[in-house]
Amino acid sequence: MTNLPSAVVRISRTVWRDGVALETSERASPAETAIAIVYDGGTEAVMMASPQDVEDFAIGFSLTEGIIGAPEEIESLEIVEHADAGLEARMWLKRGLGERLGRRRRNLAGPTGCGLCGIDSLEQAVKPARRVEAERTFSASEIHEALEALSRAQALNHATRAVHAAGFFRPETGLIAVREDVGRHNALDKLAGALARAGEGTEDGFVVLTSRVSVEMIQKAAVVGVGLVVAVSAPTALGVRMADEAGITLAAIARSDGFEVFTHHHRIIAAEPEKLAAGGAGQ
Amino acid sequence: MTNLPSAVVRISRTVWRDGVALETSERASPAETAIAIVYDGGTEAVMMASPQDVEDFAIGFSLTEGIIGAPEEIESLEIVEHADAGLEARMWLKRGLGERLGRRRRNLAGPTGCGLCGIDSLEQAVKPARRVEAERTFSASEIHEALEALSRAQALNHATRAVHAAGFFRPETGLIAVREDVGRHNALDKLAGALARAGEGTEDGFVVLTSRVSVEMIQKAAVVGVGLVVAVSAPTALGVRMADEAGITLAAIARSDGFEVFTHHHRIIAAEPEKLAAGGAGQ
Repeated sequence: MTNLPSAVVRISRTVWRDGVALETSERASPAETAIAIVYDGGTEAVMMASPQDVEDFAIGFSLTEGIIGAPEEIESLEIVEHADAGLEARMWLKRGLGERLGRRRRNLAGPTGCGLCGIDSLEQAVKPARRVEAERTFSASEIHEALEALSRAQALNHATRAVHAAGFFRPETGLIAVREDVGRHNALDKLAGALARAGEGTEDGFVVLTSRVSVEMIQKAAVVGVGLVVAVSAPTALGVRMADEAGITLAAIARSDGFEVFTHHHRIIAAEPEKLAAGGAGQ
Repeated sequence: MTNLPSAVVRISRTVWRDGVALETSERASPAETAIAIVYDGGTEAVMMASPQDVEDFAIGFSLTEGIIGAPEEIESLEIVEHADAGLEARMWLKRGLGERLGRRRRNLAGPTGCGLCGIDSLEQAVKPARRVEAERTFSASEIHEALEALSRAQALNHATRAVHAAGFFRPETGLIAVREDVGRHNALDKLAGALARAGEGTEDGFVVLTSRVSVEMIQKAAVVGVGLVVAVSAPTALGVRMADEAGITLAAIARSDGFEVFTHHHRIIAAEPEKLAAGGAGQ
């Protein structure tokens, strides 16, 4: 295994307050590294990401992009460090999958500069999300519990105050996995990879995000297979439409005292009175 | 000219507070639209973006990606709406530029899935930024003035609370241009396009951003040609390194009472005492 570069870099900077330079000291900044996703010797994509949990990222990206259906379809995965240039997640796929990849590459030809006309490439870019079947309901207090647990678990963000997190929460067992990244898409891909590698079922829990919810976040959550996505920030209009179409309950703008539900309201039920009254006047 | 879809969509959602559903009402969400960038009949890229200032976006993207050196190199630009699929920015380049584009496409082959090996595609992904020559200095009070002006000018964000902005500020004339988008890269590309179309010189002003500063934001600012980038949120470590190499002064984590300077400190000078004392005890 490669020793990954550190996810935190100490950087000197000068703090200015009230119009004057106050002091020069160090601050922890998140590292940002180019990561090449390579299948069968050819690069599929290069993303700028936090250099931790790179195996999870490679497997999660492969899943959410539809290149594989399960981690077992990757025959080998090796993380290779190229000094200053970045990291390479070098994967070899099981025989026969190369063909699927070739077909995908032809399909991607449009958005990536090889000559499809505008309308074809637009239709490739916003594909319908997978339809989610999970039917379990969650209470408002479970949602708040998940948000608090995620906030406590963001180690890289506690150090740098500049990265996103994606977590998976199951009421019986709490926060099962958390992954962090400078990019919100990458954090969710890492979580998808971590859950698949651990063989975790996802229908009995939900995904909780620190970020805004754009359309790709819903497409990825649909592949993870959760019925509920909870996010701290706001969704885009297309994110809401995609959640509606995918059958996903979207709760966003989640704060300590509440949240807003945009789609498929039936999966959220009121908090149990005894939890709300805990420590209060109710007997 | 096409009538663009609205940048704001009203969406019904249910507000939950203290564990119970409180009320169902409308909220303004930012639209998110697939925009295809098409040159000479072939798609170069598809981005999810806010459907406003699309001409600025097309021209700015062309500049910051190095496809053109000036807006005049685009012979025609038409925005075409494809019902539900998105928008197409259809450009025809001046004769001879198609060759540059072909060369670029071959160079991009790695990161976009056509088979370059990992190390080649990594090196393509993080190219050195253009070196900035602007030498004007700015005072701390001018930086705060720019932040306040940007905050007042974010019309789409005032409506939706979910989009980023990029502005250009010149001390003599104030905030010259502001552009907003669901994506921070897009907001800066739109600003780059707006400035180039207006023929604005950029060496005597600076760029101000609401977002975090990752490496691509610095690469784009270097193309805009500013000596100073001010950002509300934090930079990544690679963003700081790129600003250092490009000769750009990076001031980030900018709040109403101060900011932090990471690179090329000489361009920032203390606030004029009379400005700080304005309304205070100074005589």
